[in-house]
Amino acid sequence: MSERVIGILGGMGPMATVELFRRIVEKTPAKRDQDHPRVLIYSNPKIPDRTAFILGKGEDPRPELVDSARKLERWGAHFIIMPCNTAHFFADTIQKAIGIPLVSMVEETGERVKAMGLKKVGLLATDGTIKGLIYHRALLERGVGVAVPGKEDQELVMRGIYEGVKAGNLELGRELLLKVAKRLERRVDGIIAGCTEVSVVLRPGDLSVPLIDPLDVVAERAVELALQRRNSLKPSP
Amino acid sequence: MSERVIGILGGMGPMATVELFRRIVEKTPAKRDQDHPRVLIYSNPKIPDRTAFILGKGEDPRPELVDSARKLERWGAHFIIMPCNTAHFFADTIQKAIGIPLVSMVEETGERVKAMGLKKVGLLATDGTIKGLIYHRALLERGVGVAVPGKEDQELVMRGIYEGVKAGNLELGRELLLKVAKRLERRVDGIIAGCTEVSVVLRPGDLSVPLIDPLDVVAERAVELALQRRNSLKPSP
Repeated sequence: MSERVIGILGGMGPMATVELFRRIVEKTPAKRDQDHPRVLIYSNPKIPDRTAFILGKGEDPRPELVDSARKLERWGAHFIIMPCNTAHFFADTIQKAIGIPLVSMVEETGERVKAMGLKKVGLLATDGTIKGLIYHRALLERGVGVAVPGKEDQELVMRGIYEGVKAGNLELGRELLLKVAKRLERRVDGIIAGCTEVSVVLRPGDLSVPLIDPLDVVAERAVELALQRRNSLKPSP
Repeated sequence: MSERVIGILGGMGPMATVELFRRIVEKTPAKRDQDHPRVLIYSNPKIPDRTAFILGKGEDPRPELVDSARKLERWGAHFIIMPCNTAHFFADTIQKAIGIPLVSMVEETGERVKAMGLKKVGLLATDGTIKGLIYHRALLERGVGVAVPGKEDQELVMRGIYEGVKAGNLELGRELLLKVAKRLERRVDGIIAGCTEVSVVLRPGDLSVPLIDPLDVVAERAVELALQRRNSLKPSP
């Protein structure tokens, strides 16, 4: 069977898109350029802020999300992945607008957490992802409990993401996110880096519990699907 | 004025494409996602090996190169850049097939070297780039002399690139490439990291002369053009 073309609906944010692309390349078993699958990336940072909209304070990102996904389909992608957890709030809307599967980073992560046998995981994510219950739904459906940082710690998470990583200040981002992660790990048996900015600055070795990185999970799945090592290609479970 | 969409004709190789994308994102003066320009990437690693064809030992990469460039144009890119030095051997062929500019990493590097006032630069690159005279033409046209490693040293460069960096052995790659660079720097007043693998392991501080990195040069130019800070948009000089 021939390979599949990976479509990345990116720009949310741009560096998370770089990071997802890098992991796909690294995780591909290849000895030469030609062993790698084709990848189509539409890095569209003009998609309005997802968290702002979910919290009722911003422009609707759905038209631009749907338009970008349709473009990737038209250009020849066989499936689409998105390096933004919060954007998965709109996964159903996007999936209904296209004829190829949107392989959900959130559902794939839910499957991974379940397979690891974790009972309760902590979630480091934006307010939008938390209030939109994006991971809660995927985890609770699989019998996994969810813990989120307290109000003040969640403010540190948001600063770490926006003033830190998104603004290019990785040191500040790492400092704030690590501080909250260290407090959160005491009451869970795994932590999900539920915002791509978190995966940019936290490493598994930083914590005493497993750090589940949805970017890694979806990168591995994308490589499998692209190389046809799993034959089924349908929307995520 | 509105921004321009950057098109990256990538996959040559995939990791060099990641690296070019990363530098574009890092070099963009942005405080939030929406400040970044749109980027379209077609990572097409199925383009046949450029060096092999130039040396008369492989399949013609031009049909796939032209097809990929046309796709990027059709998808909405306003200009195209390529993260492969050797592929610039075919720059004219690609440019003639499309209606948007191919912004040449090689020509832009020539401009940079000239602006720096360098009289003679050393070239660390693949056999394909050297035998294809890719940088020679761009530099000699601008009155800049070119020095390449001697035959035995060039074998070390190829080993450093292929057995070292490309095979994941960065230490070996650095050792071999630094050894050659140290001998080359005695007879030039700047060195061009004319292969992506070279910029992965050599740092400007390693040498007593400036190290010019074409990936940096073209990333900076792409950001300028995308943000319209330079208004002209025509094929590279």
